[in-house]
Amino acid sequence: MATSSSLSLEDVKTHNSPDSCWVVISNQVWNVTDFLPSHPGGAEAILKYAGRDATQIYNELHAPGMLEEALAHDKFIGDILPSSDVPPKATIEEASAAENSLQPQIQTPIKAEAVQTPSQSLLPYEKPHLHSLISAADFQEVARHTLTPKAWAFYSSAATDLVTYGMNKSIIRRIMFRPRVLRDVKTVSIKRKVLGCESSTPFFISPAAMARMAHPDGELALARGAGDEGIVHCISSNASYPLSSIVKAGNADQTFWLQLYVNSDRGKTEELLRKAAALGIKGIFVTVDAPVPGKREADERIAAENVASAISGAVASNDKKGGGMGRLMAAYVEKSLIWEDISWIKKVSGLPVVLKGVQSAADAMMAARFGADGIFLSNHGGRSLDGAQPSILVLLELHRICPDVFDKLHIYIDGGFERGSDILKAIALGATAVGVGRPYLYSLTYGKEGVEHLTQILKDELETSMRLCGITDISQAHPGLLNTSDIDHMVSTSADEHPYIRWKPKAML
Amino acid sequence: MATSSSLSLEDVKTHNSPDSCWVVISNQVWNVTDFLPSHPGGAEAILKYAGRDATQIYNELHAPGMLEEALAHDKFIGDILPSSDVPPKATIEEASAAENSLQPQIQTPIKAEAVQTPSQSLLPYEKPHLHSLISAADFQEVARHTLTPKAWAFYSSAATDLVTYGMNKSIIRRIMFRPRVLRDVKTVSIKRKVLGCESSTPFFISPAAMARMAHPDGELALARGAGDEGIVHCISSNASYPLSSIVKAGNADQTFWLQLYVNSDRGKTEELLRKAAALGIKGIFVTVDAPVPGKREADERIAAENVASAISGAVASNDKKGGGMGRLMAAYVEKSLIWEDISWIKKVSGLPVVLKGVQSAADAMMAARFGADGIFLSNHGGRSLDGAQPSILVLLELHRICPDVFDKLHIYIDGGFERGSDILKAIALGATAVGVGRPYLYSLTYGKEGVEHLTQILKDELETSMRLCGITDISQAHPGLLNTSDIDHMVSTSADEHPYIRWKPKAML
Amino acid sequence: MATSSSLSLEDVKTHNSPDSCWVVISNQVWNVTDFLPSHPGGAEAILKYAGRDATQIYNELHAPGMLEEALAHDKFIGDILPSSDVPPKATIEEASAAENSLQPQIQTPIKAEAVQTPSQSLLPYEKPHLHSLISAADFQEVARHTLTPKAWAFYSSAATDLVTYGMNKSIIRRIMFRPRVLRDVKTVSIKRKVLGCESSTPFFISPAAMARMAHPDGELALARGAGDEGIVHCISSNASYPLSSIVKAGNADQTFWLQLYVNSDRGKTEELLRKAAALGIKGIFVTVDAPVPGKREADERIAAENVASAISGAVASNDKKGGGMGRLMAAYVEKSLIWEDISWIKKVSGLPVVLKGVQSAADAMMAARFGADGIFLSNHGGRSLDGAQPSILVLLELHRICPDVFDKLHIYIDGGFERGSDILKAIALGATAVGVGRPYLYSLTYGKEGVEHLTQILKDELETSMRLCGITDISQAHPGLLNTSDIDHMVSTSADEHPYIRWKPKAML
Amino acid sequence: MATSSSLSLEDVKTHNSPDSCWVVISNQVWNVTDFLPSHPGGAEAILKYAGRDATQIYNELHAPGMLEEALAHDKFIGDILPSSDVPPKATIEEASAAENSLQPQIQTPIKAEAVQTPSQSLLPYEKPHLHSLISAADFQEVARHTLTPKAWAFYSSAATDLVTYGMNKSIIRRIMFRPRVLRDVKTVSIKRKVLGCESSTPFFISPAAMARMAHPDGELALARGAGDEGIVHCISSNASYPLSSIVKAGNADQTFWLQLYVNSDRGKTEELLRKAAALGIKGIFVTVDAPVPGKREADERIAAENVASAISGAVASNDKKGGGMGRLMAAYVEKSLIWEDISWIKKVSGLPVVLKGVQSAADAMMAARFGADGIFLSNHGGRSLDGAQPSILVLLELHRICPDVFDKLHIYIDGGFERGSDILKAIALGATAVGVGRPYLYSLTYGKEGVEHLTQILKDELETSMRLCGITDISQAHPGLLNTSDIDHMVSTSADEHPYIRWKPKAML
Repeated sequence: MATSSSLSLEDVKTHNSPDSCWVVISNQVWNVTDFLPSHPGGAEAILKYAGRDATQIYNELHAPGMLEEALAHDKFIGDILPSSDVPPKATIEEASAAENSLQPQIQTPIKAEAVQTPSQSLLPYEKPHLHSLISAADFQEVARHTLTPKAWAFYSSAATDLVTYGMNKSIIRRIMFRPRVLRDVKTVSIKRKVLGCESSTPFFISPAAMARMAHPDGELALARGAGDEGIVHCISSNASYPLSSIVKAGNADQTFWLQLYVNSDRGKTEELLRKAAALGIKGIFVTVDAPVPGKREADERIAAENVASAISGAVASNDKKGGGMGRLMAAYVEKSLIWEDISWIKKVSGLPVVLKGVQSAADAMMAARFGADGIFLSNHGGRSLDGAQPSILVLLELHRICPDVFDKLHIYIDGGFERGSDILKAIALGATAVGVGRPYLYSLTYGKEGVEHLTQILKDELETSMRLCGITDISQAHPGLLNTSDIDHMVSTSADEHPYIRWKPKAML
Repeated sequence: MATSSSLSLEDVKTHNSPDSCWVVISNQVWNVTDFLPSHPGGAEAILKYAGRDATQIYNELHAPGMLEEALAHDKFIGDILPSSDVPPKATIEEASAAENSLQPQIQTPIKAEAVQTPSQSLLPYEKPHLHSLISAADFQEVARHTLTPKAWAFYSSAATDLVTYGMNKSIIRRIMFRPRVLRDVKTVSIKRKVLGCESSTPFFISPAAMARMAHPDGELALARGAGDEGIVHCISSNASYPLSSIVKAGNADQTFWLQLYVNSDRGKTEELLRKAAALGIKGIFVTVDAPVPGKREADERIAAENVASAISGAVASNDKKGGGMGRLMAAYVEKSLIWEDISWIKKVSGLPVVLKGVQSAADAMMAARFGADGIFLSNHGGRSLDGAQPSILVLLELHRICPDVFDKLHIYIDGGFERGSDILKAIALGATAVGVGRPYLYSLTYGKEGVEHLTQILKDELETSMRLCGITDISQAHPGLLNTSDIDHMVSTSADEHPYIRWKPKAML
Repeated sequence: MATSSSLSLEDVKTHNSPDSCWVVISNQVWNVTDFLPSHPGGAEAILKYAGRDATQIYNELHAPGMLEEALAHDKFIGDILPSSDVPPKATIEEASAAENSLQPQIQTPIKAEAVQTPSQSLLPYEKPHLHSLISAADFQEVARHTLTPKAWAFYSSAATDLVTYGMNKSIIRRIMFRPRVLRDVKTVSIKRKVLGCESSTPFFISPAAMARMAHPDGELALARGAGDEGIVHCISSNASYPLSSIVKAGNADQTFWLQLYVNSDRGKTEELLRKAAALGIKGIFVTVDAPVPGKREADERIAAENVASAISGAVASNDKKGGGMGRLMAAYVEKSLIWEDISWIKKVSGLPVVLKGVQSAADAMMAARFGADGIFLSNHGGRSLDGAQPSILVLLELHRICPDVFDKLHIYIDGGFERGSDILKAIALGATAVGVGRPYLYSLTYGKEGVEHLTQILKDELETSMRLCGITDISQAHPGLLNTSDIDHMVSTSADEHPYIRWKPKAML
Repeated sequence: MATSSSLSLEDVKTHNSPDSCWVVISNQVWNVTDFLPSHPGGAEAILKYAGRDATQIYNELHAPGMLEEALAHDKFIGDILPSSDVPPKATIEEASAAENSLQPQIQTPIKAEAVQTPSQSLLPYEKPHLHSLISAADFQEVARHTLTPKAWAFYSSAATDLVTYGMNKSIIRRIMFRPRVLRDVKTVSIKRKVLGCESSTPFFISPAAMARMAHPDGELALARGAGDEGIVHCISSNASYPLSSIVKAGNADQTFWLQLYVNSDRGKTEELLRKAAALGIKGIFVTVDAPVPGKREADERIAAENVASAISGAVASNDKKGGGMGRLMAAYVEKSLIWEDISWIKKVSGLPVVLKGVQSAADAMMAARFGADGIFLSNHGGRSLDGAQPSILVLLELHRICPDVFDKLHIYIDGGFERGSDILKAIALGATAVGVGRPYLYSLTYGKEGVEHLTQILKDELETSMRLCGITDISQAHPGLLNTSDIDHMVSTSADEHPYIRWKPKAML
């Protein structure tokens, strides 16, 4: 670290503009003026704290290591005088918050054991003992009560009216089992080879951003839990810890994948891909369903309320889109990514590339044509385009329209999978493996132990479901075990056309 | 204005019968005896205030200008003495109401910032800042709390059991997207040519009556907001401001359409059509689905309660239909309008004519045969015949039964469209543009700014939905982007017949 | 009336057994010993009051005239001493009830204007003014609050889980209109010839028992209201007034039908049929769907609670069926009525015979074969066999399986029809007329005026619906105006067989 | 019984390990060391009480007779000193519970008449008089209020999300009747020959474990009630009374079946089968749908909470499956039972063998091929694999795929049948008889009288439904009486394959 002097908050105070912007993080002063334009969350998010202590908000959203990684050493200005007489914050109303920010290691966004629920605050909520949780839904319930409103809104929200979010689950539930009996099911195996790597399960941790909002260990806990349970962790490129820290937190031979948002500055993406390859990442999951972020109203509402209260009648931003974390974090995402870019990603990374967010048979065929190694049927957990068809319908659509893709591509799926029996349904319909997203974020309210506990629950549910279906190896799961008749009418039968409308818009003629 | 003397309320008091009927509006006395039979709301509505001050109720329902426009100058009798000693109202129980009526400019039907909600009155409702509203539903929620019960009932009500009202929305939501990925969606355009005019959007303000009940600026605010946002405003012929005032409130080159109820006195309709043409109106939307008004119970209930409390046991009107505003305003509507009248309207106005309220493929074909320029698939927002099929089903029915009408007619649609994604679905199914009705009335609780804010929200939602579908110009929207399989079984397949019933009533044999 | 002496209640007290059973009704003592076995409600119902005053319960269930009609004159024993010193009732705990029973003309089962609702009793219920009621549902709401719990349970109850009761309504609502526009609908006619008689409407009052429980005038009010409105009244054979009184209460040329439960003592039925013919009744509606009563739990629960509280632990009746009014009143019904009996009823009455309760195409064909004049598609308002298919599905089933019955039979229907638009749907599907049952019972809470008010509401709703469909005479209603596609899959396609099950039980082989 | 000395609790206290484990039951000391490994509920369940008084928990779950039956006489150590001065329990906090355990005959798991409901405890619940109960649902409501939380959880719980549990009921309800009229239905018979035995009804008591939790008489009451009503009782092999006691409790000529969980120690099963045959059991119902128990969360949650509170932070069991009673009791069940074992069971028992838990046409055909006498279509009341198709769909599936099994096999069914009309539907679709499970457990809250009362209710409902359908003998019930069109689309059409997916997993290729 560069040489530096000791400063008081008074010294920092004047560097509060785009021309000279200093912030204090954990008693260290940094000059972030040059970094402003390339901040993933946008310059404005930093400027709100220009000339002030930003420890608290920084710690909520980033791991300590990220700062040093993002900034050159000469951007470090110096340390804040420890025993300064001046009050450590510019305004008196931030005093109590300030106290927390002096102990970033202690203060965490999740609350202590007895916390108030955001929705109903009459009785204090007593966080249950981990061992009394017996389902993914139990973890969600704990998270609803113990996360900060902001974190809960960010994790749980989905696009606009939650139609897709709700259908993801309900359509899976409308698929029925046709269990077979009188098979010897004493031993059962759920091991699966996924993207060429061994996994103890046919499910994995789906990428989800900003795990640190749920627990100070964030993605480190996910990595450690995944390692101990032998499952694959697909790391979000919006993780709150540096990629290297996450990978190092795991076991030596642990399988990681990297979810990738291509940056509109393609050079940064190349840099990230090369780093990923160097770190031993085993696959790249390129997100293709979010060139722009969906409108997640619960998330945006919190931001909108902040804006409205701040301006209190004055002229406001003319951005009517809301400005939740989802939108902030998507600011750098490349909106012009096209099919031809797949080969570029493959070449730069040298890794298998899976397209995350394929939502139609038409694009599954495109993926095969353009050389993708796999597709990840996903609608971003209902967070992208509300009204998009549930992933499980897309899986069935592939069988109807382009069954040959099952021979050409690895096929992953997520969206609404919360039970071992849910997972079994997708595997029986030909999916290679199933991603589990929100439940793992919610399990983080118990740190690494939560991750492991949830994994064990899902394993047990899956094994029990297999036994009760009369199969003993996950590779035996087949469509004949299912009755999909209640939803078959909702499966599309043509790739790019409407089944009975012949009308074409002028742009297509 | 004619010469006139100063009068006291005592002088007015005796003119309280159909033979001699005077009313006071904003301290001016008018003789409305001759006007009684041609009052759109019926003579009775005026006679309730005969010989008295009617300022308050007048201002709720009409703009100031309408009085002078409707009455000849010689009907003005004189001014009320400003410092009269006699109490200004006939009865003591109207005293407080009277005070308001002396300041018509200040008093408005919408309440102040902190108002009581009509439904639950424990806590005062705090009207949120405009910038915290992020969806059309948010505007509805504000309107529900801040409009007068009468205005809320009139705007929000739909026919009898709200079956069509509810289905309008739910059927749209059951249409799923099949988003396409990996397209360059950096720039996106939602511009559309509608009825020969440029519009910044493929949606427009659907005609809705009596906007003044929501805001003193009423239709003026709608016109101004539409102008600033570059969208088309279809003006209701039951507007609370004179047509000319509304048109003048807009920009010079702004596109207006006029919704038309044909008057049973056809001469008046001809007069209106010529005025509209002279004012630069660009299209006539003739309402064809309401020869009589539907039974909107929330609206009628308020009226019925008034009647019941008024008569308190005495012999009441033997009208069992209820008498909500919907019925009052429809009194003058021609019940004998037929297909042959379309050419008359076209000839008189010299403008394109669109039929508003077409609800079947059979009538779409009729429209083409009788020379209409377009059809507006609409069930009056569920306000006409409850049980009528949702508009979006009619749109699909056209494809099944008479796909050639898409080449012959402009096709507009409204009914339940509240999201940009809803709008995109209709456009993808071949609609030229989508009407948005109630949400704009609700947006008026914030005046012109509300209209603009709502428009920006819808634009953003539409653009986001397009990007997430992989298209960059609204003209690229096509049926293949949709999965309509969940509702396809509800689409009629025969024009004028039942699919399997061969029985015919005697009247048809 | 026979000579008689004056008696005290003490004199009556000892006649309290099946061997000698006297009861006091309105201060008159009657010997009902011989009548016990033929009491429609069973001997036990009378024996509960043997040797005591039964005025109150009698007046709830019967009109005064019924007593004299049922008993020979010599069964009258004498009058109770008016100024007797002995307390008028056997037990002190019946004292307050006794006071009422002395003024049978004043005391009625429906409560005064401000009554307590049976369900929630915090606030007194204020019965609304008749003119504020604008729908059949409004009448139901009033009835729910103002009827005695017993009467409400009897009227509103349906069989077991209310599946059929609920489906009756919901299936009608799932039929959509396809309204036609631009027709001249200035004048509209809903007149209809039903069973050879003129009616002002294509709907009629469906038979419903014991109207006196809702209003002291009971069926008299129904008859008077029907007469004034020109609609047909189908009188229940379980009416609470004698048939002759009801007929006389109407106008001279008014049309009545008689609903008939065939008595297991066929002679009594013959007597009733001849009396009906003599009184000018125009048609006999034989109930065929209730050889035994359905299990209406709300009704039976009240009875069961009475039994349970009475016996309080002692050995109870071993009847596990419950014993609601429905079961009591059905005690006399012939369980062996068969198709061959139709000709007997026709011959004895000399009147057209309609079978009430046909629920399948198979039986519709039987009806035509066995010479019935009409069929009344009905499931007893969901009160007979729970799970029976809704009537409107049966109407559609006729079109699928035996469309020729529309030429051979009058086809009536009831079950869930509460709106003019509901009625229009059935007429458009070929029904001759629609029965409206419960709503008329509920309208009785306002006596004759209620009956008329409800009729006018239904007329207005029907006329409005017709206009909005583009037809001007009820005879123009046709299936092409409807979209039944949402329920078409539920319509049976084979008469007596299952569409794909070939298995037959041994009893059929 | 062996000679024995008198002991104090102090003497017992030290035998608290797997090496020497004594327990006190009803003041008798037993050495259960050798019995530990063969305890159906697992050794751990006993070790919790090692060296202590286990009377209370023992009495909840077992009948007194079971102890003597399971242990050799020399395992009896002696009696506890009656007037011992030492407190009878090891810890003071168990004192009050201890008092109960001294009077096992009095103390029962169900509470006294006025008890607190587990869910809402504001008002004491007054248990209604048996004669006021008129439906199976009424019994459930009483049970919900009066059972211990543990018993309620065990009985009422079903697997994970209760999807199958709910569908069992809802799919039956969606089958409609097509009642036939004008048949002579004066007399009606519901007698049925089931598995070669006469039964007064086509329904029977489905096996359900641990009836003693609902009433001290447990299965004895079921047997007595069944005997008096002439219905078949299928005894659970997890009954809380010894098989011989249950059989002896019934009538001399009463029909019993035995439900069988094959023990992983097959010798024990052979012993049980021979005993059953000797006791006159008429059929063996081998459970085939539960090689492992389903995950019944309500049941497991209670166990999980106990564990969590016990360990309070310490290292817990690493079993994440939960440990409800369902799992405990299934510990001994053979997981390797296969089709070839059917002949073994037939040979050992010499009795007809029915496979309980067949859930697909494919396995129905297997059952016929492997010589089973019958199949019991069941999904364990939704307690095994959540998402398994409802039994009634499987019954329809047989007609679609393998109608010949109706000639080869007895076909029983259970799952969601609570009404006589429900039962009639299954019989009309070809089932031989219908099992009723939970309702009978709930009826036990009134002991034997409850069992009889419920049976009479079901008989009456069934007879009424038959009469209203126009049939007089249960053998006349046929599919043509039903309209199954609302669920026909959910019936599978192929045995072992998916209707349109041709993809096969590698394990099948």
